[in-house]
Amino acid sequence: MPRTIVRLSARDIRMPTSESKAGSDAMHVDPDYSGAYVILETDADDGRCGHGMTFTIGRGNEICVAAIDALKPLVVGLSLESIIWDMAGFWRRLTGESQLRWIGPEKGVIHLATAAIVNAIWDLWAKVEGKPVWQLVADLTPEQFVDCIDFRYLSDALTRDDALQILRDKLPTRAAREAEMRREGYPAYITSAGWMGYPDELVRKLCREARAAGWTRFKIKVGRDSDENVRRAALVREEIGPDALMMMDANQAWEVGEAIALMRPLAEFHPLWIEEPTSPDDILGHAAIRRAIHPIGVATGEHGANRVIFKQLMQAGAIDFCQFDNCRLGGLSEALAVLLLAAKFKVPVCPHAGGLGLCEYAQHVSLIDYICVSGSLDRRMTEFADHLHEHFLDPVSFRGGRYVVPTAPGFSIEMKPQSLDDYEFPQGRKWRR
Amino acid sequence: MPRTIVRLSARDIRMPTSESKAGSDAMHVDPDYSGAYVILETDADDGRCGHGMTFTIGRGNEICVAAIDALKPLVVGLSLESIIWDMAGFWRRLTGESQLRWIGPEKGVIHLATAAIVNAIWDLWAKVEGKPVWQLVADLTPEQFVDCIDFRYLSDALTRDDALQILRDKLPTRAAREAEMRREGYPAYITSAGWMGYPDELVRKLCREARAAGWTRFKIKVGRDSDENVRRAALVREEIGPDALMMMDANQAWEVGEAIALMRPLAEFHPLWIEEPTSPDDILGHAAIRRAIHPIGVATGEHGANRVIFKQLMQAGAIDFCQFDNCRLGGLSEALAVLLLAAKFKVPVCPHAGGLGLCEYAQHVSLIDYICVSGSLDRRMTEFADHLHEHFLDPVSFRGGRYVVPTAPGFSIEMKPQSLDDYEFPQGRKWRR
Repeated sequence: MPRTIVRLSARDIRMPTSESKAGSDAMHVDPDYSGAYVILETDADDGRCGHGMTFTIGRGNEICVAAIDALKPLVVGLSLESIIWDMAGFWRRLTGESQLRWIGPEKGVIHLATAAIVNAIWDLWAKVEGKPVWQLVADLTPEQFVDCIDFRYLSDALTRDDALQILRDKLPTRAAREAEMRREGYPAYITSAGWMGYPDELVRKLCREARAAGWTRFKIKVGRDSDENVRRAALVREEIGPDALMMMDANQAWEVGEAIALMRPLAEFHPLWIEEPTSPDDILGHAAIRRAIHPIGVATGEHGANRVIFKQLMQAGAIDFCQFDNCRLGGLSEALAVLLLAAKFKVPVCPHAGGLGLCEYAQHVSLIDYICVSGSLDRRMTEFADHLHEHFLDPVSFRGGRYVVPTAPGFSIEMKPQSLDDYEFPQGRKWRR
Repeated sequence: MPRTIVRLSARDIRMPTSESKAGSDAMHVDPDYSGAYVILETDADDGRCGHGMTFTIGRGNEICVAAIDALKPLVVGLSLESIIWDMAGFWRRLTGESQLRWIGPEKGVIHLATAAIVNAIWDLWAKVEGKPVWQLVADLTPEQFVDCIDFRYLSDALTRDDALQILRDKLPTRAAREAEMRREGYPAYITSAGWMGYPDELVRKLCREARAAGWTRFKIKVGRDSDENVRRAALVREEIGPDALMMMDANQAWEVGEAIALMRPLAEFHPLWIEEPTSPDDILGHAAIRRAIHPIGVATGEHGANRVIFKQLMQAGAIDFCQFDNCRLGGLSEALAVLLLAAKFKVPVCPHAGGLGLCEYAQHVSLIDYICVSGSLDRRMTEFADHLHEHFLDPVSFRGGRYVVPTAPGFSIEMKPQSLDDYEFPQGRKWRR
């Protein structure tokens, strides 16, 4: 029996995180972690719904909700089976809608909205199969995997045949890596000790607690004040010790030349990478920075608008680490394409997470990368921030600084009904008072 | 007396152009030319209002209206004088708003909305000065001109000092070029004879009519069917004669390799450029196409999201013609930056126009370019499409295939009150029936 999507509802969910400065950085001083949240209901009587969301940081979340509403006619009335049968075509119809594409194309609000819907489809599909999303994908044949991807604008860097070859090479050893992941979990690093707006003593305390919990990889925020950057880096290095990994994140605050100059005095703290040193659109700028600050790596991706940007970051040799976001890209369907691009160009993927629901998403993406695509853990780890997981039905779980593999069916993104009601903006209980 | 902005209203204006296929191309088969329209009211008793709009092609226009509403608190309550005093800072506050920037940054819906507001400020400023916008800018000193620009992310290609030098070099001869423009007008080319959806006989008729009216430069649409492209190019070349300029526009329909292959059989028709051969985000792809199809030029820009994309198109030697859109960029303030970049890299600017209101905007941009920035007409011309000008209070005007210089105060973008009422979506008279 086909299962038809009969209703798509979009809700504006916001958490008042700006009250505590959680998530603050050089460009985003007061984020309210938010989700433009999608629920897909079907005519099946098993009560299974598809859930998906796109992450924003507060104001503007209502614009993403409006964009989801604009895409609704392209989804409601379709059967899940017809979508699954042609995932690439479904994605092309959303991103290529002849009038809506003008306001992107494939970037900004309309692409964020696309992600929420596409990920809700993946969630629904996985629930119907009774598997977590990572496993649903790990159980696809290479042919089924590539059939989920729209290769438009990629063919000069990655063809369907290239993609098939990458997947076939890893196929015989998939089961061994899956067993390893179930046993060991996926490596992670922690961001939530080093927010820009936190006072020194809080940073010290959080670093100590994280070390005690088994964390060995830490990311800190840096900004435009060189002395302050050096002071904070020294403080964190003192707390985490000489052997722990330290990453730095400038959140787009710098000019190209400024990035090169400001990283020079930070080299003594041995950062693995500098993240978002400049505009996320500046492929050639990242390449210039990378050449200048070697052996410090360059990382970017959480604001990388689409696969065409990532294609060029790799063609230009601009990055050492690819940090795409599964809801900045147009959902998992496009994320799979970027995983394949990264494998072809031998760039490790360390997905962007934190925020609201992003860790829940990212763990699936990293498991797919390791089990099906790259087959490697070398220089790979998934971001983690310790906020807001209590609102999810199947929250991320950690053991010794590693993500424990999720086993519940779906994309781990479904929020508790009470949280949805309490934090709905502006009418929810938490916003009314 | 300072003049304070007391009200910002945003309206969803749509024209049912899809009924006639006007504007149709390979990717946008049924556009309804639309504007997310801004009106700024002030507390002055002279009745002057600032008008601005961003162009879209129908569905999604309501999302841009929602984004304008989200930016409203950053504008209402400010005096025009305080904005003019620091145009670059005003622009930075809109594009850098700490929560809203997440849903861009500086791209897609939120940037389109920024453009509508920024251009309405320029319109208001020019009206208060009693000048058309092009003349307001042409009367600025080089220092005042660069003070309107946010140079963030440009400094590796264009500094404030570079910009000042370019403007100072042209300063002594500004008056002569202004007089020439008032006498001769600015060169244009016509797009509205060659829409994809038009039948052959209509294309022939429109080409003949345009030639009779003095047009000598024509653009046609091309798509993925090579034989059909060749047939249409031959038909148009036959009508316009061997000496007229012909440009071609693929509207992003092709892969990089496909663009190179499909342009080969079109070379015999001597196109000046191929426009948007592939993804508008693909800087390196445009560079590869340009190398392969020389001496046919490569043009792009109407979907170029921001100045960082244009910086790279120029750094990479990816384009022969820069076709930015004054409302895809974040309004005139950012367009001035790209004019300066183009002058530094010696790339001619041929602004995107057509649509609804875009010709009205573009004529000002081209006049500023010639009078203040590039000082050259070499390989420069502004797009023109003969649709919907009747809805504007100060519509574009033509003589012998050239834009006649506008003289009314403002940005020429104010629509007739009756048109705004009739075409407001969905409640206007033209949509209700």
